[in-house]
Amino acid sequence: MRQAYFKYRREANAERAADLVLRHCRLVNVLSGEIEEDVSIAISGFQVVGIGPWYEGEQEIDVGGRYVYPGFVDAHIHLESTKLTIPEIGRVMARYGTSTVITDPHEIANVASLDGIAFQMDTASDNGYLNVFFTAPSCVPALADNGVETYGAYLGPSKLRFLMQSPWVVGLGEVMNVPGLLNGDAKVLRKLKDFQERHLVIDGHAPLLGGPALNTCIYLGVNSDHESTELEEAREKLRRGMHVMIREGSSEKNLDALLPLINEHNVSRLMFASDDLDPTDLMARGHINHLVRRTVAFGVPAIRAIQMATLTPATYFGLNTSIGAIFPGALADLVIAPDLEHFMPDMVIHHGRLVYHDGQTLSSCRSTRRYLKPSINVKLPNEEALAVPSVSGKLARAISLIPGQILTNEVFFKPKTKDGMAVPSASQNIAKVCVFERHHGSGAFGVGFVHGFGMTQGAMGSSVAHDSHNIIVVGMSDADILQCAREIRNMDGGQAAVWGDRVERLPLPIGGLMSNQDAETVVALELKLSEFCAAVLGVTLPNPMAALSFMCLPVIPALRITDQGVFRIAPGGYPERVDIFEGQA
Amino acid sequence: MRQAYFKYRREANAERAADLVLRHCRLVNVLSGEIEEDVSIAISGFQVVGIGPWYEGEQEIDVGGRYVYPGFVDAHIHLESTKLTIPEIGRVMARYGTSTVITDPHEIANVASLDGIAFQMDTASDNGYLNVFFTAPSCVPALADNGVETYGAYLGPSKLRFLMQSPWVVGLGEVMNVPGLLNGDAKVLRKLKDFQERHLVIDGHAPLLGGPALNTCIYLGVNSDHESTELEEAREKLRRGMHVMIREGSSEKNLDALLPLINEHNVSRLMFASDDLDPTDLMARGHINHLVRRTVAFGVPAIRAIQMATLTPATYFGLNTSIGAIFPGALADLVIAPDLEHFMPDMVIHHGRLVYHDGQTLSSCRSTRRYLKPSINVKLPNEEALAVPSVSGKLARAISLIPGQILTNEVFFKPKTKDGMAVPSASQNIAKVCVFERHHGSGAFGVGFVHGFGMTQGAMGSSVAHDSHNIIVVGMSDADILQCAREIRNMDGGQAAVWGDRVERLPLPIGGLMSNQDAETVVALELKLSEFCAAVLGVTLPNPMAALSFMCLPVIPALRITDQGVFRIAPGGYPERVDIFEGQA
Repeated sequence: MRQAYFKYRREANAERAADLVLRHCRLVNVLSGEIEEDVSIAISGFQVVGIGPWYEGEQEIDVGGRYVYPGFVDAHIHLESTKLTIPEIGRVMARYGTSTVITDPHEIANVASLDGIAFQMDTASDNGYLNVFFTAPSCVPALADNGVETYGAYLGPSKLRFLMQSPWVVGLGEVMNVPGLLNGDAKVLRKLKDFQERHLVIDGHAPLLGGPALNTCIYLGVNSDHESTELEEAREKLRRGMHVMIREGSSEKNLDALLPLINEHNVSRLMFASDDLDPTDLMARGHINHLVRRTVAFGVPAIRAIQMATLTPATYFGLNTSIGAIFPGALADLVIAPDLEHFMPDMVIHHGRLVYHDGQTLSSCRSTRRYLKPSINVKLPNEEALAVPSVSGKLARAISLIPGQILTNEVFFKPKTKDGMAVPSASQNIAKVCVFERHHGSGAFGVGFVHGFGMTQGAMGSSVAHDSHNIIVVGMSDADILQCAREIRNMDGGQAAVWGDRVERLPLPIGGLMSNQDAETVVALELKLSEFCAAVLGVTLPNPMAALSFMCLPVIPALRITDQGVFRIAPGGYPERVDIFEGQA
Repeated sequence: MRQAYFKYRREANAERAADLVLRHCRLVNVLSGEIEEDVSIAISGFQVVGIGPWYEGEQEIDVGGRYVYPGFVDAHIHLESTKLTIPEIGRVMARYGTSTVITDPHEIANVASLDGIAFQMDTASDNGYLNVFFTAPSCVPALADNGVETYGAYLGPSKLRFLMQSPWVVGLGEVMNVPGLLNGDAKVLRKLKDFQERHLVIDGHAPLLGGPALNTCIYLGVNSDHESTELEEAREKLRRGMHVMIREGSSEKNLDALLPLINEHNVSRLMFASDDLDPTDLMARGHINHLVRRTVAFGVPAIRAIQMATLTPATYFGLNTSIGAIFPGALADLVIAPDLEHFMPDMVIHHGRLVYHDGQTLSSCRSTRRYLKPSINVKLPNEEALAVPSVSGKLARAISLIPGQILTNEVFFKPKTKDGMAVPSASQNIAKVCVFERHHGSGAFGVGFVHGFGMTQGAMGSSVAHDSHNIIVVGMSDADILQCAREIRNMDGGQAAVWGDRVERLPLPIGGLMSNQDAETVVALELKLSEFCAAVLGVTLPNPMAALSFMCLPVIPALRITDQGVFRIAPGGYPERVDIFEGQA
């Protein structure tokens, strides 16, 4: 967004009273790198118009020496992961002082293509709390045309060129097709070139990548990455030329590992991102303020931590003429807080209006109803089709979860058998996992084993299943697995857990990804579901729905499952289909 | 310039040998804020393709542990001020490790409009040493349509829109018409809006501006400024939202005053600029390396000083995908130097080619002849017309020079008289100054007095006379003044000093601004001219030609002369015509 041209010139020049003046601010000046004492900030319309003692306001607020800093920026988040609509997300994030997110709408795009993205853009428009900028999803599906999975949408260069024209699009979203980059895939390079020619950024996605492959990605123009899980990995990316987004999401928590990367000379290349954040986490821990708080607690000077959350992402995405600092012409997105330690706002101003005060969000969002088609079209198999005949003398392969990470390991185990079939076993911490194609009603499905849920009975499942969002269900019996899938189908998408005839549900009818209810309701349902999984199903893995939802993503090492079967993924490599049984007993 | 798309992907991935590998580099990494030890840098064509131990080169250079840093960037320079053509400037700057300049071609534009700018762009193209990016001159003439001076060219919104299309144009050049901004002049605002909509930067020019007027300029979208002469002035600009260019030119030297501005949190908003740099200074002191050296000597960490000369301007001007750091895909513009104290290169690589080594520049510039029309069309008055009748009982007004600054003061003095005419007086340090219109042959001229040259006899003059570049001559007799103007006319532009029939000349036939000779010749002629001014004319002011050339610029306080007379300028105000005589004796 560029500034509203020149409307408040006279207010800026103190020839006319501004709409609002904040008095006695302790201004966190991310531009000059100082705290300015006892400053007045003048606001007209949705813009800051002037800073200094010369301004009068129609309304004045004495902030009494509290700190005033720019609204925080999340440099990379898939808003769909919050399961909330954008006005509802904005309402929650405002409490924590977030005013801007860069979102990659690739979840909804995988389900509903451009219609899904437009739905998000339309609901973002004037939501009252949050500036929402978009990166155009570069990899929908994650890997196209290779039989790895059945996908719901395809965004080729033509659709990306449509997106590129939007004033809300600031770059090409996380380029996950690293093999395509390394091998010079013409379609992938075409996408990069189109965005580069428009001077938009190219956001990357290169977990565990280093060496010549990393050099190649950067050579081809990838400008940033949020996938670093290890300090040396992040350091190499930063050194070689990527802007590094330090990610702390619900499933992927890299902040502690990456904090030592920050030094006094590199803050202009480092920022914060959530990537995926479930609503319970968002409500419980906060948002970017939570990352800034921990960064400051680690010993980084508050100014520097705030710059990473404001000026750096604003500059990187070419938005620093509108956001990221408090200056005349900027959007009036300001946070007023009592200290630079907890980063818990007393007041939040968005577009010049007070939107959070005394613990209350002051909703001003338009409740215009927007339309998106129902998205679930699934043909479920019968129970017998899910059975896995055991292979004598062979070990079975399982996807092994790593708590707190989206990476998985490949492990082998000797399966329990029943009637000649390999079956889940609580004592081995092995469950069965199935993926059901749900976009085209093709009836395709994949079956495999997973290690690490700690499940003892029943099944849990989700139509949130990255990135193609087929229906994924993990369970201890084929009957419960199918019942769970039916529950999800009957809600037109959502998450469910079943055991016999007991069931808990979280309906997500918007694309099978998002709720149309408010944050508190969604969190309550999520909590009930999660308690059911723990208490009834015996699940011991923390955040099991999040872990489940990433088990289909065929670009993250080491083992994944899709509706087409089980695949092994090496860093930077194409998925390789593998059988359940392999190796000698 | 964007990168050459994807040509060297295999070289980046270490699948093929690179053209050149630099071994054992001590890499100054402005991205991660570190010095990396013992690094190899691979180059193919004109790009860096990879960094790390994996690369083989067709050619290899062992740099033996010396420092390798990115080529320096001058964030704002009028290249015409060097009096050299661009290939010749590039050859000289290469010795000092400059690889990129952002130039505002507003001198040549004031003389020759778009033809002049195209001449500079054409000579810049593939010059072999230097990346030249342009800002589009926003104020040609400095103040249009108000009778302050006769100008040679007019760049309105239409011509600026032509310029905006050029891939070499990165912004709108220093917006000097601050009164136009403050008063909301529609033409001025139209220019800003056009460039903002293209996401190009708006470079400002706001000497001594602060308070609501400064807030207004920033509100309207001015992103940077290089005119700060005082620390608190620069601090206010930085705090309120301008990128601050610390200027150290030939006439304007602000480095010492502004160095205390730099802190550990604001390097992303500070850079270096020369603005105007005469060839003698360029050859004697160096270029941006001279500023970096002094910044480090002041106590700023070398990494930070280098960032101000590389990454910050590259990022500000949207060029950081090509220049400003050493990374795969960047232009291979590298400097190899033995220490981070003197910043005197041993070797310089430009676009992958060694262009400076062992004190020798290795010219590869194309000597294509480019065409620009002769520019001098002047009708000189007769001697009597220059006489100034004295006014009984009144003090005369003089422009008083401030050594080392382009600001002037207004002073009053009791003039010596001869035959009823007020005349120059060496004992009062007062000379006469005349400006002769030279674009249209109109015969217009202005006459005034100046204090501070220390001249005793003769006259000196120049067709370099900001910004309209009429002919300005300062002298102690009307006969010498006219003879000096004739000498300049006869060279088709240039600088001259005369006393009776003695004369020294520096021909500047390209627009009356630039020489077609090499740097050494121009410097030798400039030195002879300067020695003549000191030895024969008695001039005591340092750098008198530079001081003279700014005396016409009607946007800098406090007093100026044009072909239309003498004008008083308040900060941010329109020029006000004043008489030579005013006040009681």
